[in-house]
Amino acid sequence: MAVYIVGHKSPDTDSVCSAIAYAELKKKLGEEAIPARQGELNPETAFVLEKFGFSVPELLTDGEGKKVILVDHSEVSQTLDNIDKAEIVEIVDHHKIGDITTPNPIFYLNMPVGSTATVVKKLYDEHGVEIPQNVAGILLASILSDTVILKSATTTDADVKTAEELAKIAGIGDIQELGMEMFKKKSDLEGKSPRDLLFRDFKDFNMSGNKVGIGQIEVVSLSLLDEFKEPLYEEMKKVKEEGGYHSIFLMLTDIIQEGTELLSVTDDPSVVKRAFDKELEGKSVWLPGVMSRKKQVVPFFEKAFA
Amino acid sequence: MAVYIVGHKSPDTDSVCSAIAYAELKKKLGEEAIPARQGELNPETAFVLEKFGFSVPELLTDGEGKKVILVDHSEVSQTLDNIDKAEIVEIVDHHKIGDITTPNPIFYLNMPVGSTATVVKKLYDEHGVEIPQNVAGILLASILSDTVILKSATTTDADVKTAEELAKIAGIGDIQELGMEMFKKKSDLEGKSPRDLLFRDFKDFNMSGNKVGIGQIEVVSLSLLDEFKEPLYEEMKKVKEEGGYHSIFLMLTDIIQEGTELLSVTDDPSVVKRAFDKELEGKSVWLPGVMSRKKQVVPFFEKAFA
Repeated sequence: MAVYIVGHKSPDTDSVCSAIAYAELKKKLGEEAIPARQGELNPETAFVLEKFGFSVPELLTDGEGKKVILVDHSEVSQTLDNIDKAEIVEIVDHHKIGDITTPNPIFYLNMPVGSTATVVKKLYDEHGVEIPQNVAGILLASILSDTVILKSATTTDADVKTAEELAKIAGIGDIQELGMEMFKKKSDLEGKSPRDLLFRDFKDFNMSGNKVGIGQIEVVSLSLLDEFKEPLYEEMKKVKEEGGYHSIFLMLTDIIQEGTELLSVTDDPSVVKRAFDKELEGKSVWLPGVMSRKKQVVPFFEKAFA
Repeated sequence: MAVYIVGHKSPDTDSVCSAIAYAELKKKLGEEAIPARQGELNPETAFVLEKFGFSVPELLTDGEGKKVILVDHSEVSQTLDNIDKAEIVEIVDHHKIGDITTPNPIFYLNMPVGSTATVVKKLYDEHGVEIPQNVAGILLASILSDTVILKSATTTDADVKTAEELAKIAGIGDIQELGMEMFKKKSDLEGKSPRDLLFRDFKDFNMSGNKVGIGQIEVVSLSLLDEFKEPLYEEMKKVKEEGGYHSIFLMLTDIIQEGTELLSVTDDPSVVKRAFDKELEGKSVWLPGVMSRKKQVVPFFEKAFA
């Protein structure tokens, strides 16, 4: 039975491209592997796949009866429906260790680096498999996407080194240029509904028993979001109600100014104060230097909720 | 702050020796690391440490305020007390993925191989660090212990290859001889109380909300256990009561005959039937070929309880 390789819900570039690249490695190792995605591609990911000549992977949202490798997540709330009826055979990730468990021993590699793509590149090297030029392209794009062009706090030496090696293989002379091209696509908000924007990159967490949703929109300038803020806030209130959330946070991240405006709809505004030692000013709070949900937001909320 | 490296409760040879060997690697990489154990050594482990010239690691049972690397387990029920007040910085293991989670991304490597020692050996190789002769000895002993001298169902090609490489480094000509020497120590039951024997290698599991304890005693001949069976069974009943268990199982494993007599004290004997398709005969059931708790017992009970 072929194994499906799939990233998290609300897929981002790293989640989709790491699945594709890891499936390519598995095929080269003689295993049947099918890359998949759990939802619509964001404009950045669509651009990256087209640029490097990959087709859009199969949509897979239900794990029942499937053999699966999970990439770029290890949280039940972010994975396939009916994951308890799937057979998880591997996990390759770079996040905090989530609540997915397995009945059998499996291969699980999680590294504290900037992107799952960095881990996938390491697995190519470990198996002594040469990385095809187009695969190097999407892996590089994944690193640039997840690390905000190697600038976010999650960026490690391994990411920088890996990005340089991949750029060489992919024949890309200017990493910065590719990164900016991608982030301009990501900043393209035209014609999108508030709900589309909110769920473009949105993750659920179980924090000490509380359902917490944290989304992120990265733009090259916050002013691009001026007209969207109010409708986004209204949408967050609706989603909070519908989904029975304790809190919904939306990171509006300015990748040039390097900071995040955190929009907050919550049953308990004091969690923001406890997490960041700053009071909400109206609907949001400005967090200078904060660009990474994983490293600079989630752990602080985990503590605040504990 | 130095990091403590520690295996599971009721420590076995792999749990203790992998902690020591990984601490040695960390030290060679310039990090401060202290190997630890969560309980008394069993006679086999004591023999191995003495044979290869290592002192008994520090006792550590409470994680509060400590920085820790967990080896050979990933289950909350098997780890340090107050693990939520510890900082887990790495996990290196070879079991099913357990319920330990972290607030931050960490290095987590789990491989479906016969022992954690096999994974630790791989980490030495990855870092290009030469394995000292005595460290090779305890790593080899760990593999032999966990794989019943490379015979159990969990044994992989990687374990066999690693054992051969380690034997060469350790200067051990006859792997089989070392293994039998170890298992004779393990089979030495003289002067032990039923409680000591039951807890020598005992693990707690949360199976679909039910507290299940599974112990194992490995001997070179089941007849060695004849006089212990009745007192062990009585002890299991006591422990079940005291600890609020749904079930307590004790694997009496004959490593020569290659099979296990499973002693069972349970609220629902049908789980044994569902797990192994064999009825209990009185207090136990004979399971031919079954030698591994991890691969041949735990997954089947997980399913039976699901």
